[in-house]
Amino acid sequence: MLKVGIVGGTGYTGVELLRLLALHPEVELGMITSRSEAGTRVSEMFPNLRGRVDIAFTEPAPEALKSNDLVFFATPNGTAMRLVPELLEAGVKVVDLAADFRLRDPLLWEQWYGLPHACPELLQEAVYGLPELHRERIREARLVANPGCYPTAVSLGFLPLIESGLVAPGAPLIASCASGVSGAGRKAAVPALMGECGESFKAYGVAGHRHLPEIRQVLGGVAGAEPDLTFVPHLLPMVRGIHATLYARCPPGSDLQALYEQRYAQEAFVDVMPAGALPETRSVRGVNQCRLAVHRPQGGDTVVVLSVIDNLVKGAAGQAVQNMNLMCGWAEDLGFDSVALLP
Amino acid sequence: MLKVGIVGGTGYTGVELLRLLALHPEVELGMITSRSEAGTRVSEMFPNLRGRVDIAFTEPAPEALKSNDLVFFATPNGTAMRLVPELLEAGVKVVDLAADFRLRDPLLWEQWYGLPHACPELLQEAVYGLPELHRERIREARLVANPGCYPTAVSLGFLPLIESGLVAPGAPLIASCASGVSGAGRKAAVPALMGECGESFKAYGVAGHRHLPEIRQVLGGVAGAEPDLTFVPHLLPMVRGIHATLYARCPPGSDLQALYEQRYAQEAFVDVMPAGALPETRSVRGVNQCRLAVHRPQGGDTVVVLSVIDNLVKGAAGQAVQNMNLMCGWAEDLGFDSVALLP
Amino acid sequence: MLKVGIVGGTGYTGVELLRLLALHPEVELGMITSRSEAGTRVSEMFPNLRGRVDIAFTEPAPEALKSNDLVFFATPNGTAMRLVPELLEAGVKVVDLAADFRLRDPLLWEQWYGLPHACPELLQEAVYGLPELHRERIREARLVANPGCYPTAVSLGFLPLIESGLVAPGAPLIASCASGVSGAGRKAAVPALMGECGESFKAYGVAGHRHLPEIRQVLGGVAGAEPDLTFVPHLLPMVRGIHATLYARCPPGSDLQALYEQRYAQEAFVDVMPAGALPETRSVRGVNQCRLAVHRPQGGDTVVVLSVIDNLVKGAAGQAVQNMNLMCGWAEDLGFDSVALLP
Amino acid sequence: MLKVGIVGGTGYTGVELLRLLALHPEVELGMITSRSEAGTRVSEMFPNLRGRVDIAFTEPAPEALKSNDLVFFATPNGTAMRLVPELLEAGVKVVDLAADFRLRDPLLWEQWYGLPHACPELLQEAVYGLPELHRERIREARLVANPGCYPTAVSLGFLPLIESGLVAPGAPLIASCASGVSGAGRKAAVPALMGECGESFKAYGVAGHRHLPEIRQVLGGVAGAEPDLTFVPHLLPMVRGIHATLYARCPPGSDLQALYEQRYAQEAFVDVMPAGALPETRSVRGVNQCRLAVHRPQGGDTVVVLSVIDNLVKGAAGQAVQNMNLMCGWAEDLGFDSVALLP
Repeated sequence: MLKVGIVGGTGYTGVELLRLLALHPEVELGMITSRSEAGTRVSEMFPNLRGRVDIAFTEPAPEALKSNDLVFFATPNGTAMRLVPELLEAGVKVVDLAADFRLRDPLLWEQWYGLPHACPELLQEAVYGLPELHRERIREARLVANPGCYPTAVSLGFLPLIESGLVAPGAPLIASCASGVSGAGRKAAVPALMGECGESFKAYGVAGHRHLPEIRQVLGGVAGAEPDLTFVPHLLPMVRGIHATLYARCPPGSDLQALYEQRYAQEAFVDVMPAGALPETRSVRGVNQCRLAVHRPQGGDTVVVLSVIDNLVKGAAGQAVQNMNLMCGWAEDLGFDSVALLP
Repeated sequence: MLKVGIVGGTGYTGVELLRLLALHPEVELGMITSRSEAGTRVSEMFPNLRGRVDIAFTEPAPEALKSNDLVFFATPNGTAMRLVPELLEAGVKVVDLAADFRLRDPLLWEQWYGLPHACPELLQEAVYGLPELHRERIREARLVANPGCYPTAVSLGFLPLIESGLVAPGAPLIASCASGVSGAGRKAAVPALMGECGESFKAYGVAGHRHLPEIRQVLGGVAGAEPDLTFVPHLLPMVRGIHATLYARCPPGSDLQALYEQRYAQEAFVDVMPAGALPETRSVRGVNQCRLAVHRPQGGDTVVVLSVIDNLVKGAAGQAVQNMNLMCGWAEDLGFDSVALLP
Repeated sequence: MLKVGIVGGTGYTGVELLRLLALHPEVELGMITSRSEAGTRVSEMFPNLRGRVDIAFTEPAPEALKSNDLVFFATPNGTAMRLVPELLEAGVKVVDLAADFRLRDPLLWEQWYGLPHACPELLQEAVYGLPELHRERIREARLVANPGCYPTAVSLGFLPLIESGLVAPGAPLIASCASGVSGAGRKAAVPALMGECGESFKAYGVAGHRHLPEIRQVLGGVAGAEPDLTFVPHLLPMVRGIHATLYARCPPGSDLQALYEQRYAQEAFVDVMPAGALPETRSVRGVNQCRLAVHRPQGGDTVVVLSVIDNLVKGAAGQAVQNMNLMCGWAEDLGFDSVALLP
Repeated sequence: MLKVGIVGGTGYTGVELLRLLALHPEVELGMITSRSEAGTRVSEMFPNLRGRVDIAFTEPAPEALKSNDLVFFATPNGTAMRLVPELLEAGVKVVDLAADFRLRDPLLWEQWYGLPHACPELLQEAVYGLPELHRERIREARLVANPGCYPTAVSLGFLPLIESGLVAPGAPLIASCASGVSGAGRKAAVPALMGECGESFKAYGVAGHRHLPEIRQVLGGVAGAEPDLTFVPHLLPMVRGIHATLYARCPPGSDLQALYEQRYAQEAFVDVMPAGALPETRSVRGVNQCRLAVHRPQGGDTVVVLSVIDNLVKGAAGQAVQNMNLMCGWAEDLGFDSVALLP
């Protein structure tokens, strides 16, 4: 059994990790930390875990953390980078679900996250944990930067077009995306009140969202040149789910359905739906799955790719467990025996 | 034109007051205060008011407040009682939408609200602003305690049974109620996050909710003895609306439909629906209306009364404007020319 | 492997059965029927089943159904009773998720369901499938009548009070309940449109709901006399979940918390929460669990029991699988290795 | 008083028309028809109208309809075109809220609506009722084709870019839009069940939505050439509101904020928000308003316009009343004295 610790377990990413790890056959949950809730039983805060997770939150003491084989960070941005070097040195593997190790360029990180990076030397080592792109490097990694939710949905949707060269490196791309409110986390904040976001819909972060440089880096790494990407996220009046509607110009002539099916034929967690399909976010609720559909409306030059994930699973905790499976040499789908909750 | 001020205008009660006063033909909005948002334009925080309310929040300076003819307090509990005596002395009329003047007994107030009352001498003068019960006293009042949302829905539902004596003073009463999340206000708090209360339902305050002594006082005042009331509120995964399902024992034989229709025949803001009706909260969305239906399931001894209001209108700001109309000698329905938004 | 068939698989109960059976280690899904959708792949209608359920709907031919070891009926009321006798005769076990075999009295059935019963002789043999009450009889049964969703939540909540005699047989009981809209099924009907039931709340079926005689029968069977039950269901603006708020008179003096804990100490699927707890429907979303909390507000004579289930799991398909496990001599919790989806 | 009739009043557009007309000072509601509900009181079906609309549905008899001065059609597509010629001949003005008179080309109409047009000779006379574009022609019109909901939001958002020539006639345009479920109407249909569309999000009509040719016609009429428009609508898990996120390429250099403010400076029902604003659908809930914001993310070549309306008001019934006001020579904002319901 792998001894696993979670740093920062009081948010939605934390409770989702706990749900998934409770069902994982090879994991023993060693500890879960929370500075503010130390002493509280986890199942008292999250009653869905009653009878399944029997431990209490503890202080995030570095020494104790080192007793784990692998540690997940489900902390706010800027926390993991202060603890990770010490853990790696002690031989502990790390999956960071925050953004600390996602951008390779420390100056870009500082620009978007507003503070200098605490361990820039690790940014080159850290592997960006999108298994469908970096599977082999993840298998060897000590430190995995778990992708953001929007970057996962957007990257998986654009990858075949870019890898195939059907869309030129510098061509304009548009990602019009929408997320359920659990993406905003579990911290007290007026904009995430149900009185504010219930029965309403709006765009946000149009001027610049932190997932923009992340998506640019992923797609740019594949294309060889940074894409001309416009990314507009929207807030949905619901709890879980991300939907990405992707637009690219690509002259008719190629069989996009075949392209997508071949690209993801071996991927357990990416489902290319039949031509004409319209994926719903609920079709992936609670599961580590991305469902894609590719359209060419009216046979024109604009391709529309639809991509859905559960922001807390394939967009966060599920992908983190998938990365753990790879890092430990297990079957990539170990512990994922579930079906999306529909309706 | 009546010059009106609002103290504490950044919450849902405040914005709803602004919406209603913007449509009122006899009111000039003099000022709206907010310590934290002084200087911010009201319509910047609440874009529905763009083009309708053109002022900015100001500091709640007592001298400035005295320049109004009437002041609404839309503040947290315990704020109004510190300012009201001075305003009354200056000849300003006051409608308090918080709980400061709702309970007549200062010890009971202290017990439920956790701090000593700052002006207990005003508790006897203050009129409990349920026009359907205290209309004449409200007309003469300097200080009106605007009822709570649950107490409004529950009291209007039980009144005919109690006033008629069909339900004996000490008999057990049950009020099983549910509210949209706007009832929790617009302050940052984890339990009101959409991630917490979306797609879920639960009871709260079962051990004791502050509206319990308030309802007891209203019904007890009518019955001549405190009722044996069990009050269980629940939180609905929606924004606006209160639904009260009321249960009382009352032997068959009396025509309850007629009783209710007669009791409220002259009331503009209470609508007794036909026998068998099932009022929906959306049927009163945005309007100052209570809709009631009375049932005797299976012809048995238990009477079921269904009562719906919009918690922010008849349960708060609308009733406050109704009280203002009475205090100013205007038609009670002045400024209320609207129709509920359905769907 | 047990060969299992499902009759009527296009509703929410059907897709939930498919989700649970897809995860069950001892079941082989032989067939799923639908007259209207014969030929359509199941995963085309329910994309959450893509990659998990690979069969298509077929016509409900009796001969084919007989090739199964066990058949679930997820059909409208009045369908199962026409096919069940033939299946039982052929040695097939049956779990009916509709109401056909829930009431023991054929006249009562006819009164509430509006047509004569097709096989009244089976009503005495059919076992009412509430394992927490009839476990031993279910183990021996050929035909199990799976309980309704409300009756499950209400019965589990009242049972300890009634079995213990703390509430007298004829005493008044109130069940104020609320259900997500999936309880109304997946058939096209105006009242279940999101435009009708979104952002609103209402009572329904106050004059008489079909689950009333069912609950009366369960509780009456335990008490030895029919209870004086008032049952008021309400429709919640959400998809999944039932919440029952139960009221009974019971003089202080007994330790209700201990009573409930002892009653359900051995039950894997009933969780008595700590004193003071307020169960949320989301804490059981997707799992075969009932969570209960018992309160005595203000130390008075009225006891309040809160009971939550997922209407599609413990209230339908999950309980059906639990019954199948018992009928087959398997561990009662076989195939239920999951954690509720929160948030 | 203008005598007004409504044909087809049982849908959401119908009840919204009734709400608005009940508040209109110059209108007398003469009749409202419904073949299926003839005899039913309107307020029985729509309890928000209790005390405000006192008539019952009647059969849609042409002779009776001719007794009105103006008739609104709130019927399914293909109905109005059978009755309109006769009404016009009788001197009755008509506003059709369906699509019968929106497309000028009868062959295009037949292609998208699946049946031949019944009075193609009227297609040239009918004025497309977007007052911000065709105000003067609407004033003179006998027959106004009230725009679709998406076309209203999209056209108002793109107009300044196209009229100004900043976006070239044939340039690619993207309209990524989302609508609340009331846009699907009030007819029983599985996809509009709350069990289907609650807590989920999806695109629909990607291959071709009937509003596509309508938007193309509007924008093409302004540009002088049909635009290369990609239109992807999505279904929101909420009741009211449309949000359009519009993308166009337009090299930096022009002051877009000034362009938009000037274009709509005289428009009572179009509100250009300050630079950087993010309009929410709830900010127009219940009112005849379009709120716009224009962005140029990262100072790049892609312009993003955000446009929100209430699909039932500015997207349907409100715009119809606005058109009526123009056709009758009244102030354009007569009867629109209300404020959006927020929260």
